[in-house]
Amino acid sequence: MLENLLNHRSIRKFKNQEIPQDIVTSILEAASRASNTGNMQWYSIIATKDVALKQKLQAECHFNQGMVSQAPLVLTFCADINRFNKWCVARNAEPGYDNFLSFYTATIDAVIAAQNACLAAEHHGLGICYLGTTNYTAKKMIEILQLPRGVVPVTTVVVGYADEIPDLTDRLPLDAIVHLETYKDYTTGDINKHYKAKEELEFHKNLVKINNTESLAHIFTQKRYPKQNNELFSRSLLEILKEQGFMNQ
Amino acid sequence: MLENLLNHRSIRKFKNQEIPQDIVTSILEAASRASNTGNMQWYSIIATKDVALKQKLQAECHFNQGMVSQAPLVLTFCADINRFNKWCVARNAEPGYDNFLSFYTATIDAVIAAQNACLAAEHHGLGICYLGTTNYTAKKMIEILQLPRGVVPVTTVVVGYADEIPDLTDRLPLDAIVHLETYKDYTTGDINKHYKAKEELEFHKNLVKINNTESLAHIFTQKRYPKQNNELFSRSLLEILKEQGFMNQ
Repeated sequence: MLENLLNHRSIRKFKNQEIPQDIVTSILEAASRASNTGNMQWYSIIATKDVALKQKLQAECHFNQGMVSQAPLVLTFCADINRFNKWCVARNAEPGYDNFLSFYTATIDAVIAAQNACLAAEHHGLGICYLGTTNYTAKKMIEILQLPRGVVPVTTVVVGYADEIPDLTDRLPLDAIVHLETYKDYTTGDINKHYKAKEELEFHKNLVKINNTESLAHIFTQKRYPKQNNELFSRSLLEILKEQGFMNQ
Repeated sequence: MLENLLNHRSIRKFKNQEIPQDIVTSILEAASRASNTGNMQWYSIIATKDVALKQKLQAECHFNQGMVSQAPLVLTFCADINRFNKWCVARNAEPGYDNFLSFYTATIDAVIAAQNACLAAEHHGLGICYLGTTNYTAKKMIEILQLPRGVVPVTTVVVGYADEIPDLTDRLPLDAIVHLETYKDYTTGDINKHYKAKEELEFHKNLVKINNTESLAHIFTQKRYPKQNNELFSRSLLEILKEQGFMNQ
């Protein structure tokens, strides 16, 4: 187990090989055993295998990343209050979950379930990759996956047999992300120390060179996650929360 | 690994037994290897062991649940853009992460890391429990854990050697939470079928009886997660997002 956790690599190239149904079931079962708030299971998992549908998701939601249609299994984890609401209404109980806290709670539960699914998949010898694009194109995801009010896509995981063995990616040193007892804010000296190894990686130095940017940080702020995109996606995500019924507080 | 995933129980009673430092480090390392957006690691982990501090958290943030001070290790996983922002500023790059999308992205990453930590802990023979109270009392958590602007607590996990072996809790049948290809909305018939086993559990029937409520759903809507609490906590959480600098879009 520990070895699996420590050796995780995101896989973005998959073999043209189906996943046996009993393994798919095992992955979904592992997801369903995850810790969740009040055992209410405020999430749903959309398991997409249909080639045309995967291609549509890839083109319209996932910035045309080839791994979406290549992967035999695409799992979209959604915050879902709809099922619970319907249960409450069917029992004459009045649900009070059309608010931000409920959405946030459901998000946390959906992600815990997603990570269980990922680890079960890796246990079965499969590779996985999380797709952040789900949050950027949630409106389109809702349309394509036919998500009703009360349901918002949180994250997507592509699953399949790896057709690549990428190197382990770097991480900040443990003392950069862990704080003992309470948060200790970072001095510029701390920042320089914590980011030194990352900045000195040949791969990152080369990235700065070919992009002709001032530093590795500029790759993120100017190329990969620029302010105007983040703001655009933020507005659209908040709009979706309203439309899907999570902003009544 | 699979057995661990399938046999998870939340542990709420712990032995008075320290966790060896190498095991704590192994848990934190497993967390740091988790998938995360753009390898930016937008999270921090506060590892609290100090007895007085744990008691303070328990009393002021976690509804006085005894397991907080009883557990030898309390891990609070935070969405953290502060460290990344400081790195950008130190390199003359202009960060654009004071918005909702960045907070939401950081939340997802913090939760994936949290679940890795939980599974590593369970691998080492420890028990864990997630605390949803962190979202209800985030303002107080920020104060006690001294979280600066750009940092919001997402979830707390208590870790220790179990002093109980609870039964495995029930789950909805897999076909209640999994949708093939696209979302299939639930009819009342579906709801009745999916919630039947849960409603017929002796434990739940007894809960309805001793609370003198109309149904199990009423336990949730009236007793455990009532509308007015959800709305109150929603407003305070949204206020905190503003205060911590995540609502500029």
